[in-house]
Amino acid sequence: MTTALPLDRTYAEQLDAADPLARFRDSFARAGGNQIYLDGNSLGPLPLATQARIAEVVSQEWGAGLVSSWDHWVGLPRETGDLVGEHLVGAAPGQTLVSDSTTVNLFKLVNAALDAQPGRRVIITDDDNFPTDRYVLQGIAAQRGCELRMIHTDLDEGVSEDALRSALGPDVALVSLSHVAYRSGALADMPRITDLVHDCGALMLWDLCHSIGAVPIELDASGADLAVGCTYKYVNAGPGAPAILYVRTGLQSRLRQPVWGWFGQADQFAMGPAYDPVPGIEHFATGTPQILGTVAVAEGTKLLGEAGMARLRAKSVTLTGYLIYLADQWLAPHGFSLASPRADARRGGHVTLSHPDAWRISQALIAAGVTGDYRTPDRLRLGPAAVITRFTDIWDAMDRLRTIMADGTYSSLAPPLSRVT
Amino acid sequence: MTTALPLDRTYAEQLDAADPLARFRDSFARAGGNQIYLDGNSLGPLPLATQARIAEVVSQEWGAGLVSSWDHWVGLPRETGDLVGEHLVGAAPGQTLVSDSTTVNLFKLVNAALDAQPGRRVIITDDDNFPTDRYVLQGIAAQRGCELRMIHTDLDEGVSEDALRSALGPDVALVSLSHVAYRSGALADMPRITDLVHDCGALMLWDLCHSIGAVPIELDASGADLAVGCTYKYVNAGPGAPAILYVRTGLQSRLRQPVWGWFGQADQFAMGPAYDPVPGIEHFATGTPQILGTVAVAEGTKLLGEAGMARLRAKSVTLTGYLIYLADQWLAPHGFSLASPRADARRGGHVTLSHPDAWRISQALIAAGVTGDYRTPDRLRLGPAAVITRFTDIWDAMDRLRTIMADGTYSSLAPPLSRVT
Repeated sequence: MTTALPLDRTYAEQLDAADPLARFRDSFARAGGNQIYLDGNSLGPLPLATQARIAEVVSQEWGAGLVSSWDHWVGLPRETGDLVGEHLVGAAPGQTLVSDSTTVNLFKLVNAALDAQPGRRVIITDDDNFPTDRYVLQGIAAQRGCELRMIHTDLDEGVSEDALRSALGPDVALVSLSHVAYRSGALADMPRITDLVHDCGALMLWDLCHSIGAVPIELDASGADLAVGCTYKYVNAGPGAPAILYVRTGLQSRLRQPVWGWFGQADQFAMGPAYDPVPGIEHFATGTPQILGTVAVAEGTKLLGEAGMARLRAKSVTLTGYLIYLADQWLAPHGFSLASPRADARRGGHVTLSHPDAWRISQALIAAGVTGDYRTPDRLRLGPAAVITRFTDIWDAMDRLRTIMADGTYSSLAPPLSRVT
Repeated sequence: MTTALPLDRTYAEQLDAADPLARFRDSFARAGGNQIYLDGNSLGPLPLATQARIAEVVSQEWGAGLVSSWDHWVGLPRETGDLVGEHLVGAAPGQTLVSDSTTVNLFKLVNAALDAQPGRRVIITDDDNFPTDRYVLQGIAAQRGCELRMIHTDLDEGVSEDALRSALGPDVALVSLSHVAYRSGALADMPRITDLVHDCGALMLWDLCHSIGAVPIELDASGADLAVGCTYKYVNAGPGAPAILYVRTGLQSRLRQPVWGWFGQADQFAMGPAYDPVPGIEHFATGTPQILGTVAVAEGTKLLGEAGMARLRAKSVTLTGYLIYLADQWLAPHGFSLASPRADARRGGHVTLSHPDAWRISQALIAAGVTGDYRTPDRLRLGPAAVITRFTDIWDAMDRLRTIMADGTYSSLAPPLSRVT
């Protein structure tokens, strides 16, 4: 976005008036008053349909239906996975499952992938991948005696394809990267990187946590082998809602996951003596699935499906481009710099700004009615959600931020504490 | 229960009138009409407090509080674990955590236990342990090249201590058994078996799925090393609510679990480069915890704590003893036999009856307004929950069952299908 834009609020009002997705704002519960929520990249807002559906499942399906409701609950992880496949991640049916957490799904798929690649003993990831990804891979490498090869990532620009190319070789079993970097919001080129990885005979696993629901994803078309991702950010499925996992059809029969749970067992209620996994995606299930979270994934997915990922992405790019433009004009003079890729095509759904005093500023911003979040070492992360955020929200947030900077009292706030992403 | 009891309904009415726990029935949502629910051993009923609390968490903490609610959510898995420790499993604080599913918790603890027992390569379990336990152990044994030594269990009487004694030896790293057998309801002697296992230097892991909330449990006092258990049965926390895990304090620093997730990381939001686990029970956490299920565990636990496990157990024993007495009188002549231990002290919360046509009879019983469940090969499982089941429920259920048997039309029903435990 290099052309000059009007800096007055009227321009933002005009963009809102022309927004084809504006009506979706009414599909969500609102945090009270003039609070502006730019942290959908951490915990998405509550869809009213989800609130109603959870109440219905609790009172009718659990309260009244009791154990008989398992007759349809048992199919929900796969059916909801297919819904996610259709609307959000570009996966044909039978490849996506709602299950466990991202952490546990990653553990299952990485171990399964390594077992399927005998003779190759290197896992590649990047040193700015999300913490749980790095820790899970460290644990697996330690247990299996594999090498975890870390490629260096620029904190602002995301994974370097050159660095990846240099790290690849015939000893690499698996590459595990985030589609959108949690810190910078940098968007990786999924098809190109997947091809690069396949060229050396390795398998490609994508972590979609920060891209699912924010960016159109085409797992099947890109040839991805494996994916995991959470649903409590842009899918708006609520705190600790179950994650998804994806295993492409052609790979399913070659993989056996390590947690041999009864929900992955063929003819589950025969309760036979030996583990005999279901042939399809349900093999990757483990224990009894959480039902309230799974119905929330279904509701959140349907809502995004109705808005349409292409329209959501178009609005998201305009929102973040506008945010960057205002930051350039108003905040750069106060010592802010952009810590996300500047090119639209290289950004996911959130924008990160760096400032030496980012933590105190993020606290002052919350006090001023704008929720973003702080990330180490000096980052202010702002995540508009196209399904609910208005252009006037962006204008107001940036206006409050420049007021905070002009005022300067933020610098007397207490030192940093931890907060949850 | 060998003394003669009156067989008329008036006796059941008198027992109900004298029941000190009768008022707790009003704390639960009711399945409509004259439905009698004897499947709390599969999915417990809905506490009204849980319904209200979930609605509050959805609308207020998620809907209005959004990401700021993580400030208190982040402590819930441990705080709720301590509540479970205090009221249900006899564990001092800092040893019990709400986390993942029973299946995933079992996977974590068994791997951690085996790593801590170098030089010992045998896991013992029994051939009638719950399916997911057997499958998880089979998977771990296959992956690690361990021996899984299966002791034979009588389907009616539960684990044989003699069989266990014969299987134990200096090569045994871990024994993993269910406290209450899922099929027969047989209750294992936790302190004695734990001592037996410790005598040979092995670690003892208890699966509490079918005992927690039904039977008083004293993990600390019995010297148990490890435990897992679900909360959707007698704890009434709803479909797919998270499970618990227990690691005794003295063992925590010796164990490292295999799923190195970010919720087990010290100074989690520093997001540092290397996994550096929290020293306490939270090391055994993995990914983002499900919050709705966790608050349901807290509510269900508080309700049982208010009723008191000693009173619940006393009523449960009387309920199941009465059920067995009526079965002896009314159903034995129709070919039923008891498939649970007859001695009160050897039974958990449910009673199992065997009959060659058990599946069809269980279907006819559901049609007659009584929910129990079928288990292979020929078992009808009936699980009164002391917190809600009345003695008249037992009388009515057994009365309907004898009517079904006298009528005989059940024998024309369709053949078996699968159902969820």
